[in-house]
Amino acid sequence: MIEAVAIAGLPEVRPGDDLATLLAAAAGDLRPTDVLVVAHKVVSKAEGAVRALAAVEPSERAHDLARAHGKDPRHVQVVLDEAADLLRADAGRLICRTKHGFVCANAGVDGSNAGAPDTVVLLPADPDASARALRARLGCAVVISDSFGRPWRIGQAEVAIGCAGLAPLDDWRGRTDADGRLLGATHIAIADQAAAAADLARGGKDAREPAVRLRGLERHVLDHDGPGAAALLRAPEGDLFR
Amino acid sequence: MIEAVAIAGLPEVRPGDDLATLLAAAAGDLRPTDVLVVAHKVVSKAEGAVRALAAVEPSERAHDLARAHGKDPRHVQVVLDEAADLLRADAGRLICRTKHGFVCANAGVDGSNAGAPDTVVLLPADPDASARALRARLGCAVVISDSFGRPWRIGQAEVAIGCAGLAPLDDWRGRTDADGRLLGATHIAIADQAAAAADLARGGKDAREPAVRLRGLERHVLDHDGPGAAALLRAPEGDLFR
Repeated sequence: MIEAVAIAGLPEVRPGDDLATLLAAAAGDLRPTDVLVVAHKVVSKAEGAVRALAAVEPSERAHDLARAHGKDPRHVQVVLDEAADLLRADAGRLICRTKHGFVCANAGVDGSNAGAPDTVVLLPADPDASARALRARLGCAVVISDSFGRPWRIGQAEVAIGCAGLAPLDDWRGRTDADGRLLGATHIAIADQAAAAADLARGGKDAREPAVRLRGLERHVLDHDGPGAAALLRAPEGDLFR
Repeated sequence: MIEAVAIAGLPEVRPGDDLATLLAAAAGDLRPTDVLVVAHKVVSKAEGAVRALAAVEPSERAHDLARAHGKDPRHVQVVLDEAADLLRADAGRLICRTKHGFVCANAGVDGSNAGAPDTVVLLPADPDASARALRARLGCAVVISDSFGRPWRIGQAEVAIGCAGLAPLDDWRGRTDADGRLLGATHIAIADQAAAAADLARGGKDAREPAVRLRGLERHVLDHDGPGAAALLRAPEGDLFR
């Protein structure tokens, strides 16, 4: 059985806050086999990965893109700062590959739930390192999540952008099915599914419930940090779906 | 709180079996606000959506593709029969758009857990109709799931290919975040996240646990069938990520 419980009572997180202490106090009983899924925004805010738009000087390119897509040029500049590649721009969204290698809208730069006006929240600089630091303090597995759009499907789903203490993938290659037949290429994205499960337990985008405790994933919990969510990134040249 | 419990004791399902009766007997207490997530393979088998490879005559094109990609030409022929478009072929996988509009490897045609040798399982002909029929018999919401690969990310995640009685999307457009700021394009793919959460509760690909009961999704459960998983399909021309 899997149980997902949203952690209530976390205060608004601000740059410089000690997030591990806040999470530990709000979560109460955390066991070594629990997985705490934390929406990246509180991690980014605690780490200071936010930008005040008033301090952003948009480049010529940011102005051009902003004009073409009906966006704030300062927001566009922050997106360009966070992007390694701009893959496509249309309908007000800039689909980027981030410096980490994630492919998502606006390079993960988002103004909602920023906690302050005219402020945008970035992705953490190194989400796996953030997860490792939280795991060391909390003593349970940690997933850091964000909601990404998906090709071919409507709607966003939560995925893991950082993880520590949880095996991000369950590798069934070379193992057999219930009939004893060898399974082909079967890798299950456990950390992404954990992020998705956690999101269902949240009250919603207005609920201030960034952290969710998952219980029942003992099978995938490690006694070390493990490879992190970086193991979920497919190199562009190996990607059959592109 | 969300609770996901794998349903034990379902027998091997065969063409012509009354799946609703088997599921009801194995699941026991099902409430109207429960969501039963059912792996498509048992639905396909009960509906007879299977093909014995011995009865398949591969076309010239199937032979060519099979030679080029190291596959069984009869399996390739079934994939071509189920595909509306072949988008890409490489490394032994044929990335297809199915007749339903799903983009997935091998058009969803799979030999694992087929229950018989030299047999492949197809996707159900109309997974939303299958979900509606099960909902009518079981009295709870139903999601029919399959595991799909994803562009840019390693590993498969379970998604909804059919659903009834569950809102497939939670639409936050026009609503506000915790700061009262208007949210942009925010649609949450509830049915896909439910499929992913359910998969975490299963023992694994060898566990014969095709059905998982989710409790705690009252907020998204409908008093009618709703639009089904067809609402999750993005038309190719509206897809920014392609």
